[in-house]
Amino acid sequence: MLFRDEAEFVHWLRQRWPDRAPGLKLGIGDDAAIVKPARDCDLVLTTDLSLEDVHFRRDLHPARSIGHRALARALSDLAAMGARPRFALLSLSIPRTTRRTWISALYDGLGRLAKGQGVTLIGGDTAVTASGPVMADVVAIGEVRHGLALRRQGAHPGDGLYVSGRLGLSALGLAFLRSGKRLSTGAPSADNLPAHDRRAALQAHLYPEPRCRVGMALARRALASAAIDVSDGFARDLGRLCDASGCGATIWEDCLPLVNAKAARDATPLELALYGGEDYELIFTVPRTRLSQVPRAIGGVALHRIGEIRRGRGLALLGRGGEAIPIEAGGYDHFRRSDRI
Amino acid sequence: MLFRDEAEFVHWLRQRWPDRAPGLKLGIGDDAAIVKPARDCDLVLTTDLSLEDVHFRRDLHPARSIGHRALARALSDLAAMGARPRFALLSLSIPRTTRRTWISALYDGLGRLAKGQGVTLIGGDTAVTASGPVMADVVAIGEVRHGLALRRQGAHPGDGLYVSGRLGLSALGLAFLRSGKRLSTGAPSADNLPAHDRRAALQAHLYPEPRCRVGMALARRALASAAIDVSDGFARDLGRLCDASGCGATIWEDCLPLVNAKAARDATPLELALYGGEDYELIFTVPRTRLSQVPRAIGGVALHRIGEIRRGRGLALLGRGGEAIPIEAGGYDHFRRSDRI
Repeated sequence: MLFRDEAEFVHWLRQRWPDRAPGLKLGIGDDAAIVKPARDCDLVLTTDLSLEDVHFRRDLHPARSIGHRALARALSDLAAMGARPRFALLSLSIPRTTRRTWISALYDGLGRLAKGQGVTLIGGDTAVTASGPVMADVVAIGEVRHGLALRRQGAHPGDGLYVSGRLGLSALGLAFLRSGKRLSTGAPSADNLPAHDRRAALQAHLYPEPRCRVGMALARRALASAAIDVSDGFARDLGRLCDASGCGATIWEDCLPLVNAKAARDATPLELALYGGEDYELIFTVPRTRLSQVPRAIGGVALHRIGEIRRGRGLALLGRGGEAIPIEAGGYDHFRRSDRI
Repeated sequence: MLFRDEAEFVHWLRQRWPDRAPGLKLGIGDDAAIVKPARDCDLVLTTDLSLEDVHFRRDLHPARSIGHRALARALSDLAAMGARPRFALLSLSIPRTTRRTWISALYDGLGRLAKGQGVTLIGGDTAVTASGPVMADVVAIGEVRHGLALRRQGAHPGDGLYVSGRLGLSALGLAFLRSGKRLSTGAPSADNLPAHDRRAALQAHLYPEPRCRVGMALARRALASAAIDVSDGFARDLGRLCDASGCGATIWEDCLPLVNAKAARDATPLELALYGGEDYELIFTVPRTRLSQVPRAIGGVALHRIGEIRRGRGLALLGRGGEAIPIEAGGYDHFRRSDRI
């Protein structure tokens, strides 16, 4: 049985989420939550949908991963604004046949990530359907000092172009999941990829780490002129940053942090990087005069200089031979395709 | 065709929602919205799901009503806290076959209510599914002076019990919709109910007016000791207020603002009032010493004294004969029934 009634569910939730956090006046259990905002900060608000068979599949993704990813999507948006994540609300729609252990695992996944990022769940809504898909909508609320939030607009020709972490890893992890190649420790793999690389790819897909510390450090130092997170694919998201800033970008192929070439069988590492999506890394730009101040890494996450913002529109890939190839702003668009996962 | 791509949809949205409102620094179109909270206020946050075939039916509810109701649910939560509504975010999941005119009507309905209540849409998320149900999750953000927010807890034995507006009207409107008795102006109706009564019932169900002005006035005057809105049914929601406050309540049957008796054929006006739900009226309690300060109406909405908070637990209905009948805290509970509408 799921829960006897809403009261039991709310009681269950409140036991897991103590009603205490700096700035929190009232959490789960009333008509709404009450928060006292920090005096010198703006509030940053975002909401992200995670839908069964669009953003996840219940036969591929464990419930813990579904909960983790639902929150990670929203926190990644806060990271892209340079905000410190503080609070979250979860609206959840589940079919009546769902088991309590499954719900519990979903909240565990969300809860672990929340704890690691200093986030408190302060409310939400729940609907039980006869047979509908699982749907989770996460609201995330963050804080950033007045005027320091990063935006998509603000990049200028000449600015350095950066990306954190590695690109294409999540898409590779999803490919492993799809092909049923789950991680069997120690066993030699068909595609000859070292186990730790496969583990990294699965981890990146199932439990992505939103780059909040990177975004917060960039905002605090006022180092980035613009930023966006990689959710729908590097090329598409970089295209959005460029469109908002009214400029184009050149990407240096040699400098892109790609996945191990051996791993990619259906797609090249470059294709995975450009169009893979769900990396939840940060793309950001830095004015030319401040390039020397960009550290190699923030909080253990490598920062790679991968190109330059330029006049005009569109993205071009500067290949190894020195030729510039225009690339499409491909990747995922909800209005174009009906199936994502 | 729905929209060519996400960019076109965001452009369409931004044309409808100008990026200007007091305290709004950045609205629709970036990774997140940025808000500058008022200095002397707490923020009140809530999120409410509206699911096809749970909260609405596409064959009964026009798209404009679906949009209106989705926002009204969330604003009613703010009203119950005494908060001034300020911002909203909408996460929307729609099947690919949805027409643009339908989407447009949904946003129209949401937009009109938002405008009337001083609310600006500042963000959201959208997913397009192959064939899934329509789902709207609305986040609403309001402001209330530090320490003045109303809560479910705080009622004490001896406090007067009040409700705004009328109870059971929305359930009656839904009954009209279900039975196909749409409003035909002037034509004599089968159940002999005056046309203006039927119109009021349909209006209450399709376009409920959240009682934000009532809640704000109660909070500003620090008049209410506790409050909750009627979403799942008067008896259930009053039960929640009583549980949170650790007390019981006596309801005076004679004083309940019921619907016209001629209208109710499948249920009595009393049953509609106690268990109907979706009235989005406010239940609130007032300390005995301040009863004389409660106005008869706030902003044209009548306030009815309908009973008293008492020691112990449970709800009792004091009938016309003077006998007290225990009543169940019935009404809607998502974990108990799979169909609502």
